[in-house]
Amino acid sequence: MIKIVAEWFVKPESRDKFLELCEEIIEGTRAEAGNISYALHENISDRNHLTFIEEWKDQDAIDFHNNSEHFVKIVPQLKDLCSDEPRIILYTVNM
Amino acid sequence: MIKIVAEWFVKPESRDKFLELCEEIIEGTRAEAGNISYALHENISDRNHLTFIEEWKDQDAIDFHNNSEHFVKIVPQLKDLCSDEPRIILYTVNM
Repeated sequence: MIKIVAEWFVKPESRDKFLELCEEIIEGTRAEAGNISYALHENISDRNHLTFIEEWKDQDAIDFHNNSEHFVKIVPQLKDLCSDEPRIILYTVNM
Repeated sequence: MIKIVAEWFVKPESRDKFLELCEEIIEGTRAEAGNISYALHENISDRNHLTFIEEWKDQDAIDFHNNSEHFVKIVPQLKDLCSDEPRIILYTVNM
């Protein structure tokens, strides 16, 4: 199992549009066979810092996701709504 | 429900000791009534970047944890084994 923590730094004026696009990518992603969970979180101290915490069966599942129609279509749009590059870290469970 | 992502940047020479202390704090934390899950993760690209992903019932549960015997005893020791301050972010689930 691989976990991903993907942090997004959204422009305040683009937050509503960002969340709208997230609804679409969440729906597509949760339907993927290799996805275990995929949820969007909001920093309690900064509502424009939005973070996906994701669980995947394996690297193949992530590769499939990164080439999916919804990912390829929506992720560039998400980037355009941000003030900085996303911070994306892949983890294995240690204990 | 509140999620915490707590990142630790461990000195390479202190990694074994850090993990030993994590075993102890994990055992105590998972026994707390307000804890839903508490697991340690390892950055796939940097084995010294170790991150707790934590789920808590509410802020009271986090306050209880932060004052628990194991937390008060172990967290300062963990800090001493790191090259930088931990990066700790509290989240609510957005969707």
